[in-house]
Amino acid sequence: MVKPHAVKGTPSQQLPDRRAVLKTGAALSAFVGGASVPSLSMAQAATGLSLTVPEWMKVQGRGILSPPYGVPSPFEKDVVRRQREVRVTDTAATSFSPLQNSFGTITPNGLCFERHHAGVPSIDPDRHRLVIHGLVERPLVLTMDELMRFPSVSRIAFLECSGNTPNWKSVNPDFGVQQTHGLLMCCEWTGVLLSTLLDEVGLGPEAKWVLAEGADAAAMTRSVPIAKALDDAMVVYGQNGERLRPEQGYPLRLLLPGYEGNMNIKWLRRLKLGDQPFETREETSKYTDLMPDGKARQFTFVMEAKSVITRPSGGQRLSGGPGFYEISGLAWSGHGRIDRVEVSTDGGQSWHEAQLQEPILSKAVVRFRAPWRWDGKSALLQSRAIDETGYVQPRHGELVDVRGVNSFYHYNAIQTWSVNPDGKVAIHVA
Amino acid sequence: MVKPHAVKGTPSQQLPDRRAVLKTGAALSAFVGGASVPSLSMAQAATGLSLTVPEWMKVQGRGILSPPYGVPSPFEKDVVRRQREVRVTDTAATSFSPLQNSFGTITPNGLCFERHHAGVPSIDPDRHRLVIHGLVERPLVLTMDELMRFPSVSRIAFLECSGNTPNWKSVNPDFGVQQTHGLLMCCEWTGVLLSTLLDEVGLGPEAKWVLAEGADAAAMTRSVPIAKALDDAMVVYGQNGERLRPEQGYPLRLLLPGYEGNMNIKWLRRLKLGDQPFETREETSKYTDLMPDGKARQFTFVMEAKSVITRPSGGQRLSGGPGFYEISGLAWSGHGRIDRVEVSTDGGQSWHEAQLQEPILSKAVVRFRAPWRWDGKSALLQSRAIDETGYVQPRHGELVDVRGVNSFYHYNAIQTWSVNPDGKVAIHVA
Repeated sequence: MVKPHAVKGTPSQQLPDRRAVLKTGAALSAFVGGASVPSLSMAQAATGLSLTVPEWMKVQGRGILSPPYGVPSPFEKDVVRRQREVRVTDTAATSFSPLQNSFGTITPNGLCFERHHAGVPSIDPDRHRLVIHGLVERPLVLTMDELMRFPSVSRIAFLECSGNTPNWKSVNPDFGVQQTHGLLMCCEWTGVLLSTLLDEVGLGPEAKWVLAEGADAAAMTRSVPIAKALDDAMVVYGQNGERLRPEQGYPLRLLLPGYEGNMNIKWLRRLKLGDQPFETREETSKYTDLMPDGKARQFTFVMEAKSVITRPSGGQRLSGGPGFYEISGLAWSGHGRIDRVEVSTDGGQSWHEAQLQEPILSKAVVRFRAPWRWDGKSALLQSRAIDETGYVQPRHGELVDVRGVNSFYHYNAIQTWSVNPDGKVAIHVA
Repeated sequence: MVKPHAVKGTPSQQLPDRRAVLKTGAALSAFVGGASVPSLSMAQAATGLSLTVPEWMKVQGRGILSPPYGVPSPFEKDVVRRQREVRVTDTAATSFSPLQNSFGTITPNGLCFERHHAGVPSIDPDRHRLVIHGLVERPLVLTMDELMRFPSVSRIAFLECSGNTPNWKSVNPDFGVQQTHGLLMCCEWTGVLLSTLLDEVGLGPEAKWVLAEGADAAAMTRSVPIAKALDDAMVVYGQNGERLRPEQGYPLRLLLPGYEGNMNIKWLRRLKLGDQPFETREETSKYTDLMPDGKARQFTFVMEAKSVITRPSGGQRLSGGPGFYEISGLAWSGHGRIDRVEVSTDGGQSWHEAQLQEPILSKAVVRFRAPWRWDGKSALLQSRAIDETGYVQPRHGELVDVRGVNSFYHYNAIQTWSVNPDGKVAIHVA
């Protein structure tokens, strides 16, 4: 077992070695005063200055339990979910996670993206029921208390809306990574394997699909193949150590690791076994992919390998001038584990293997990092993910050559951020 | 690589097989109507009842971004941090995490326990500085922006106050697991390895200890051995995917994986290298262990292997009558990975190996689970952890035989919950 902070991947030959960079005066001038070895007198002066006792050491701080359920620092008030564009309604809408301010792999519950079709229902857990019926031997009605007595499992898994990054035809030059990739979260989920419940009810021999229905006013419904239901599907009530948040399906949601977000039905009230897909609105009118020949791909469940650099990213600035910066981002694949991530600073002409933070889990986001010495000139930053199946995240042109530009969902091409000589980072408009 | 929801450990021979339990009428009568195979007509009747459209499906739910930084369901309003006893002051106080409501391994940031000695300072991150000085070649003063340019790492690690579970002399019969074990959290931390920073400043040949100082009004200080500083110590700014919360040290804290919580200095402002320990109040007057012979153990840094059953636990109730229940809890060791956890339902006369949730990470909590068929009689529930060093969590008597009863800190003996025939669970008073 490697140590949890161990990293996978070899530092690139061409990207700079950190120690060499930090120890020459060429980089991190803010750290070493621009000299190749800082003079002790300079450092001492600086030390004396900063050991001045700040005002917050001179008074007692705020008391305990204020509040009993904690909230972020007021200095982080801008790190919140946001809309991408002006919304038509307030209850069929979307909010995006601030990936530009993300660390590690876990998305905190307060920042998980939202997508509702009829708003967030307020559900009394004591009155909520899960019904399992249709082609089963023994239909079941479960209260939450009953459901929580079943054997439970936990796993870390990502959830991505298949409408994340709809860059088929164009990009908005003002967008940062929150707007382009913020329909992504990764959490530790706890609940009951769906296979446990299906074992309890007894599957009929003709049962091939499961209809999942939500208890919101949209009565959101999707069909799930029985193979997925019996593999790693779960009904979950816990998210990152506590009960689901209302906007994530409190008190119960379906979790289909690696499948498009829309199928992970929130406020889950019903599972009906059938012998064919149920052809609901969300798998006919929506969540299909219109191909160049006029036919539509249907039941494209698995979110394919994707990655994005979160720092530096659009809207940020390399404020320290030329020198050392860490390039950091997220990679994920609905097909399993990420095998490696490569990073380019020249728009894809050359690639360097990034370091991956252990543990690397199947169908969970992976944090990748690559050291970079910025020379102060224009640069084009890219990342590409390769998963355990050998699938390589495509370039925009490669994806469009196959799928055309009529789709809205399932865009997973390489994202490019441009760095200008003044340090400003923005989305790259080809 | 095992699947993330894979479990380690073999189901016990003596604890019941779940399927057998669920499929007989002896357990889970709420699920199967008390019959060994429920009649379809019963189930259909129940199904028809529950497919009634609930009131929350008839109206639009609340809108998007309400609020932009999310909060738990109002139905979970009692799942908060709490005090154990009446406090003397509000700024030198402690609050406890509600472990009885925990799921999986991650503690959400809003529920992480608090311990302050002079309240929570409100620190402007733009004005905060980290000074590294003393026996170093090149003293450094770092702004947060500068620090966040260094190569970063993430890891999941537990933090436990060494004053957690001070059951040396007695227990309070009214305490639940929040009061007995709630000074425990496990989070994904992101920051810079301390070894990276020490490499940058250059260690003097005499440097053997590091003094860490907090920027609160208590100016909390502790001495850290250089071996730990160069091993896995970190200065962290990220916690569970976002910036540290104020009560956890915003904008910067020390993280010493596996070491007692008090040493993980919050609001970190200074690291001073010296040739010997600094003998601060927190390592002389406090955080030492008074032995029976009148001598005190000092510098007992590592939190030894420990575990506790969180569900069912004191204050809860087996509300469904005799039948199947899952026993679930947490295990951790400051020395590395948990090797196995054993569970007893007869006060330690017999032990059964629990299942451990993968991934099992070094110096992180592990979720263990064991199936249990309650026969409706009195029972005494216990768990004991064994870590990768072979260390076995001791019984109370074994611990007291060695350490006496004069200590306050570092109690890690086996916890016992009693189950009464009426289903009530309470702390066991020997």
